[in-house]
Amino acid sequence: MTKPLRVVQVGLGDIGRAAARLVLEKPHLQLVGAVDPKFVGRPLMEVLDWPYRLEGVVTHHIPAADVAIHCTTSRWETAADELAALVRLGMHCVTSCEQALLPDQHDTARAAELDRLCREHRVSVVGTGVNPGFVMDTLPALLTAACQRVHSIHVRRVVDVATRRPALQRKVGAGLTPAEFDAQLAAGTLRHVGLTDSLLFVARAIGWEDVDVSEKIEPVLGADGRVAGVRQVAHAPNLVWELEMYRGAPEPRDEIHIEGVPPIHLVIRNGVAGDLATPAMLVNIIPQLLAAPPGLHTMAELCLPHFA
Amino acid sequence: MTKPLRVVQVGLGDIGRAAARLVLEKPHLQLVGAVDPKFVGRPLMEVLDWPYRLEGVVTHHIPAADVAIHCTTSRWETAADELAALVRLGMHCVTSCEQALLPDQHDTARAAELDRLCREHRVSVVGTGVNPGFVMDTLPALLTAACQRVHSIHVRRVVDVATRRPALQRKVGAGLTPAEFDAQLAAGTLRHVGLTDSLLFVARAIGWEDVDVSEKIEPVLGADGRVAGVRQVAHAPNLVWELEMYRGAPEPRDEIHIEGVPPIHLVIRNGVAGDLATPAMLVNIIPQLLAAPPGLHTMAELCLPHFA
Repeated sequence: MTKPLRVVQVGLGDIGRAAARLVLEKPHLQLVGAVDPKFVGRPLMEVLDWPYRLEGVVTHHIPAADVAIHCTTSRWETAADELAALVRLGMHCVTSCEQALLPDQHDTARAAELDRLCREHRVSVVGTGVNPGFVMDTLPALLTAACQRVHSIHVRRVVDVATRRPALQRKVGAGLTPAEFDAQLAAGTLRHVGLTDSLLFVARAIGWEDVDVSEKIEPVLGADGRVAGVRQVAHAPNLVWELEMYRGAPEPRDEIHIEGVPPIHLVIRNGVAGDLATPAMLVNIIPQLLAAPPGLHTMAELCLPHFA
Repeated sequence: MTKPLRVVQVGLGDIGRAAARLVLEKPHLQLVGAVDPKFVGRPLMEVLDWPYRLEGVVTHHIPAADVAIHCTTSRWETAADELAALVRLGMHCVTSCEQALLPDQHDTARAAELDRLCREHRVSVVGTGVNPGFVMDTLPALLTAACQRVHSIHVRRVVDVATRRPALQRKVGAGLTPAEFDAQLAAGTLRHVGLTDSLLFVARAIGWEDVDVSEKIEPVLGADGRVAGVRQVAHAPNLVWELEMYRGAPEPRDEIHIEGVPPIHLVIRNGVAGDLATPAMLVNIIPQLLAAPPGLHTMAELCLPHFA
């Protein structure tokens, strides 16, 4: 039996706490600490809602570890600086930051600098999750491997947010008046981050360069006239990525339609539950991350992900 | 523009010819020859049924190439010897040999020797295709990445062979009398090779070691009392792999059902057409094969496959 990998959880929101609990369940991983300014000093057992004996408290200071699971932000600029600090401590990093799916798309200089730092410290960094990270990018990219030709791709994710965590419902504006929705949309807090990134991830994988993407977002109204959630669409020539996340959305599913030779029409009934699957992706990718050459990677540069 | 990779096609059955045609379509690949004792001396243009001008004839001799696409056999013992000869010529190899999905499952010594040869000659070898290679192994393995826990997996492929190439119909015994079927079954020519391998590929990926698999096969009879095809099942504790290939099979599909946290229920309507997808897999995996460290690999050890 090899020694378990030491893992530190950075960021203790819903996803971060779930990832930390999953680390606690895995015999090949050892949770050596959890870091979040919001919870400093509070017992880990309580913050993680962990039913068994668990020593330690949430800290400010980052303990020595082999791997950091980073869940603090959706924005690459913030993530890049935090990841750089973790890399300088010699840690491999998995981040849930949505814009880390394709970092150079957001800040080429910061991405190049983080890649250089990774090589210097002989560690790797990758961004993943369920969306972005899996259902709208890694999975459709894999499916194209079975195609001799690809004419067009339509990826659609329909989520009934009534079945999901309250934070996600707030994120899509559920319960707002249309005017409140417009105000929050203008403030930039409602948009799902990463839809265009998912489209570009697949476009880049299949060699469609310089794709011109436009994205639009609109509220979906409920019977009470209030906002039930959003419909967000990214499209480019022959590529349509649609995300519908609202209360009561019918036939929740993940759907991928490739027109090509052969055509492929895939449906995941009820969709992949993001609240559960994102922590799984973050933890399951660790072996592939450690096996990769040092550097800042995308999911296309790691070996086949699977349950670990 | 980098120089195209030189590819030689070894074996010119249905799949081999389709792979060679696909190589001809790809600007980053150059078909430098095709080898098959059955067609020696015949014009490539005619053997490949290629509508454009194409020089050259099928040869016995293997020309210098960077990559060989090997489509001659389902059996690992035969494939291993042929692949060793290609590796000694300095070629990376992709093989459609079904048992090459998990070579060490069939002949540990030959697999170890081929791996050593690959390292010596600084090239890589992998076995792939649509089944095995994609729908019943690589794809379900990837899906488990989104799971915190996996309780059981049920993979089912239903193919209406009436819509597929005649060779596949013969392979599943379509048109035989039940007595002829039994005779051919006893002779070992009817079984789909690779079903247990696909199950074991996923079991190994998710860390379920020493899985005890049993496989059974039975004819499916048509209304005329003749054999329409086969139903073949491999099962192990909490793992069921079912393959139904017969004329008139209703609702053709690829289906993957993971009971776990979260559960995942995926359906590919009409299934992935193997006659088209196997050549695609063989050709699309080439970039990942060349990027891998030298050695004999499985699909789990290569970076994410995608259209190339």
